[in-house]
Amino acid sequence: MSKCKLIRGGVCAAKGFRAAGVAAEIKYKGRNDVALIVADEPCAVAALFTTNKVAAAPVVYDRDVVRGGRAQAILANSGCANACTGEQGMRDARLSALVTAGELGIDPKHVLVASTGVIGRPLPMDRLLDGMRLAKTALGRTAAHGLAAEKAVMTTDTRPKEACATVTIGGKKVTVGGMSKGSGMIEPNMATMLGFLTTDAAVSPAMLKRALLRAVARSFNRLVVDGDESTNDSVFLMASGKAGNSQIVRAGADFESFCAALEAVCVSLAKQMAADGEGATKFVTVTVRGAKTEKDAERAARAVAKSPLAKTSWFGRDPNWGRVLAAVGYSGADVVDCEAEVFYDSVWAFRRGEVADAAQLKRLAAVLRKDSFEVVVDLHLGSASCSIYTCDLSLDYVHINADYTT
Amino acid sequence: MSKCKLIRGGVCAAKGFRAAGVAAEIKYKGRNDVALIVADEPCAVAALFTTNKVAAAPVVYDRDVVRGGRAQAILANSGCANACTGEQGMRDARLSALVTAGELGIDPKHVLVASTGVIGRPLPMDRLLDGMRLAKTALGRTAAHGLAAEKAVMTTDTRPKEACATVTIGGKKVTVGGMSKGSGMIEPNMATMLGFLTTDAAVSPAMLKRALLRAVARSFNRLVVDGDESTNDSVFLMASGKAGNSQIVRAGADFESFCAALEAVCVSLAKQMAADGEGATKFVTVTVRGAKTEKDAERAARAVAKSPLAKTSWFGRDPNWGRVLAAVGYSGADVVDCEAEVFYDSVWAFRRGEVADAAQLKRLAAVLRKDSFEVVVDLHLGSASCSIYTCDLSLDYVHINADYTT
Repeated sequence: MSKCKLIRGGVCAAKGFRAAGVAAEIKYKGRNDVALIVADEPCAVAALFTTNKVAAAPVVYDRDVVRGGRAQAILANSGCANACTGEQGMRDARLSALVTAGELGIDPKHVLVASTGVIGRPLPMDRLLDGMRLAKTALGRTAAHGLAAEKAVMTTDTRPKEACATVTIGGKKVTVGGMSKGSGMIEPNMATMLGFLTTDAAVSPAMLKRALLRAVARSFNRLVVDGDESTNDSVFLMASGKAGNSQIVRAGADFESFCAALEAVCVSLAKQMAADGEGATKFVTVTVRGAKTEKDAERAARAVAKSPLAKTSWFGRDPNWGRVLAAVGYSGADVVDCEAEVFYDSVWAFRRGEVADAAQLKRLAAVLRKDSFEVVVDLHLGSASCSIYTCDLSLDYVHINADYTT
Repeated sequence: MSKCKLIRGGVCAAKGFRAAGVAAEIKYKGRNDVALIVADEPCAVAALFTTNKVAAAPVVYDRDVVRGGRAQAILANSGCANACTGEQGMRDARLSALVTAGELGIDPKHVLVASTGVIGRPLPMDRLLDGMRLAKTALGRTAAHGLAAEKAVMTTDTRPKEACATVTIGGKKVTVGGMSKGSGMIEPNMATMLGFLTTDAAVSPAMLKRALLRAVARSFNRLVVDGDESTNDSVFLMASGKAGNSQIVRAGADFESFCAALEAVCVSLAKQMAADGEGATKFVTVTVRGAKTEKDAERAARAVAKSPLAKTSWFGRDPNWGRVLAAVGYSGADVVDCEAEVFYDSVWAFRRGEVADAAQLKRLAAVLRKDSFEVVVDLHLGSASCSIYTCDLSLDYVHINADYTT
């Protein structure tokens, strides 16, 4: 199995894809809000969608498209989620796919749509379709084109998020690139996030789905910002096959190489999203190790990552391990408090009943001042572990979400 | 079944109880932090404790005491939780019960202890026991004595919480009184809350437990502040029997009358706690009705009450029903979004696909400006309903919890 390498790049890094992002005034003036990603030919496609029972119209629409296994273009917009919009929303999703296909001269069954933004408002179809036409004229293959597309899907994100990895498969250089948006309303199962991944690897739709499931489980689904889960989450992966490798149709070394590159891209995007959580001042990795079972490790880590009390303590630079341990305690995971240890990076705060003294608190304070650190809970009950990517809960989170209006 | 009446009063309202609250410098100077509640004679007792696997020493200690079915005194302190304190913590809990019993001249097996505050620090035993002795000299039966005790268990609470109800049972006037603390770290299963209930009804320990379980399920367990759950939650109920009713030993009209009064007290305390949630500017009742099942109604209401996005929208006075519906969608409850309706008090924001227009938004804005309102989601899928008591998520929540130091 060949080792993958992270490089700079986004959705245009892999061969066979063009992208554009333009300003169409979907909600605001003067910022990109319509993105178009177009493959030169129909691609194998896989996608994963929100598990929220209130699913937005584009999600309902795309599920059907993806079932066919092939896609060639994605039209995405920010500013309006097209969620809770009833029959009108479904008609708008269908129509925007249809018109996009017409403009691009491709099969309407190969067009996906994605929306993010405010819930309950109808898509401004005229502006969206004007934006799509403008984006079509702006399509290109450079990194700048990929970045423009990424900027068009951002909502409260403060930074664009792109990642790219290369790996050698059967002597051919394969590239996986991607971009994502999402900073609030993020939890397991990819709450309000949109992820767009492209690769030039040749992979069958079935294996593409399998690779995506695995990568998402280890990346976007390990991401917690506020524990809310949205109506619009979608992750798309298109494979153009332009790398020239012999098509991956089964498990084996080639598949593993591809999975490693895909996972590296997804993990990088997930970490960027956690670091850009709404109002976040700190990127925090919560690791629970020494758990009895994988499930225990995961639910304990998630409980800590979701705890408002733990999150505000990180914002306050307070090594409040008591709140961390309390969250583990109510997570449902097995824990014996006098056996457990809590570390911030490699500095212990609580170890088997012993509590940090003044000197130790000083060392801890230094860790808590960092922009990025790891909270580690060792349960000493087994060998399972899990890491969750998250951020602190700051005053700005409240500002942003009290002001982001209906 | 006789109707109960809410009146003013706390733990001293029922016959047979004295209380006191004093300042003992457990953590801060000049504020009450040690409370003592003493019954004239051994009482029937019932109690419920945290389900957190990291349970504080007093919780572990009290579980044993309560198994005996009788108690006569409770020593409580704020400022130190005596949690994650290992063997030392257990010794301290035992010793404080023992010394209290000695001072009061009662059976050590009839003394309960309760602590709330910072986790991981040993109890300052000298100050605690000095405080207990001082409290003993200060014991009294007036409302002021009850209030002093309540003030001694407050942590980040901004207001004391007391409630009292009377009801006639077998021709005798029965009183149930109570006090509670808790504002942050509150969720189902009574997270960091302490509740102290007294009654002069004569009730067997078994029926007392049954009544307490029912009342707590409909009050404290319907309370969500931030979704965290603490290591120290405890609700105690002592019954002196001084009302002179014939002892309640089985279900029936007398039991129902008693339950109604107890529930009224617990619901009042729960609402006071939600209204005093850390940093809360609004008391919000989330009601989900028209659910397929009770379980659906409850999990949907809880998801909304816990959603940081919904909670910040209330703080921002924004009728963002989309976030409410999104939370219902990921709660696991059955929901068909185009069938659902969302109201703020009696003003609709979303009804079966129809979205509030400008005139309607103006009406909604008036509701959102209130200090207290109800968010109602009608799922139109059945007849089950559930109400959860909660509050908004404000800038002050973050301030308080970023600053409350380890």
